[in-house]
Amino acid sequence: MSATTRPGGRSARVRASVHHAVEELLAEGQQTETLTLPAIAARAGVHPTTLYRRWGSLADLLAEVASSRFSGNVVVPDTGSLRDDLATWAEHVATDLADPDVVALMRANLGCGVDGGSVCVADREEQLTAILDRERSRGGNPPTPEHAADVLLGPLYYRALFAGGLAEPGWPATLVDNLLTPAGTPA
Amino acid sequence: MSATTRPGGRSARVRASVHHAVEELLAEGQQTETLTLPAIAARAGVHPTTLYRRWGSLADLLAEVASSRFSGNVVVPDTGSLRDDLATWAEHVATDLADPDVVALMRANLGCGVDGGSVCVADREEQLTAILDRERSRGGNPPTPEHAADVLLGPLYYRALFAGGLAEPGWPATLVDNLLTPAGTPA
Repeated sequence: MSATTRPGGRSARVRASVHHAVEELLAEGQQTETLTLPAIAARAGVHPTTLYRRWGSLADLLAEVASSRFSGNVVVPDTGSLRDDLATWAEHVATDLADPDVVALMRANLGCGVDGGSVCVADREEQLTAILDRERSRGGNPPTPEHAADVLLGPLYYRALFAGGLAEPGWPATLVDNLLTPAGTPA
Repeated sequence: MSATTRPGGRSARVRASVHHAVEELLAEGQQTETLTLPAIAARAGVHPTTLYRRWGSLADLLAEVASSRFSGNVVVPDTGSLRDDLATWAEHVATDLADPDVVALMRANLGCGVDGGSVCVADREEQLTAILDRERSRGGNPPTPEHAADVLLGPLYYRALFAGGLAEPGWPATLVDNLLTPAGTPA
């Protein structure tokens, strides 16, 4: 009954093979109806009981995979200018969202219930806040994180999920222009 | 083998009870793992074979339910002013997205595969285009539908899916201000 997580131990190996199985099944275009804990267990070569005991539900497992996948894979740039920081970062986010595996994992999490979305964007919102905070520490007057998320992350995720893909190169930078050349009521 | 759709006939009754079963199960917070064609058939009181024969897959059934639900339930306003038309419409969209059943149906569709999103927003994009076209017919110079979708629908859907809900009343109107008081490069 040693359920402790020892790096390199059995627990870590099970975790890695289960995460890998989820990513493989998603990449193969498994619909939600067939992406189940037993199917993942079969692919990972572990007993289904292990998955139920350790993750409890598909939603919890998918959230963990998303949390690993979406953590720390976008570097927060520091160019010295808010506009360039945001434009560089927005291009990175757009590149990430152009990866079908990323979108598949996001869709699977959204399909899994009420909190399936927040785990996908938590890191992005933290990075955005960090960029805005740095501008404030430079003496600038950046927009609020909420407004910046509306103007930048809103269109990026909307297009990735609903419009079947992102736009031409350079489009993310125009979102930054929308944000920094402020409109009537930038809230 | 009469699979024709006769209004009020058996086919229409089956369709209605199946759609109703999907909506009930979603409202009860069924996770994707338990929202399956057999579960829907049991709730609707029809044989699972009927569902497999008629809809083929959960994705196709969910897309049909979404298509019925998201069609024609937002009136395109005609106030005589582009700003007021858009603000009224954006408030309607926000009200719709504040309904947990709407978000649950959208999440289920997104979870179901590559095209699960477009059915959720096709009507919204048409309505938006209609509002912009009317402004053009008034002699105005409205933004493109793509840019308007980025600025209006992007934040509305981002907040509904990822930020756990929409914002204060009046927020949708500020999105319209963002759109109509144009920034540097409105693309």
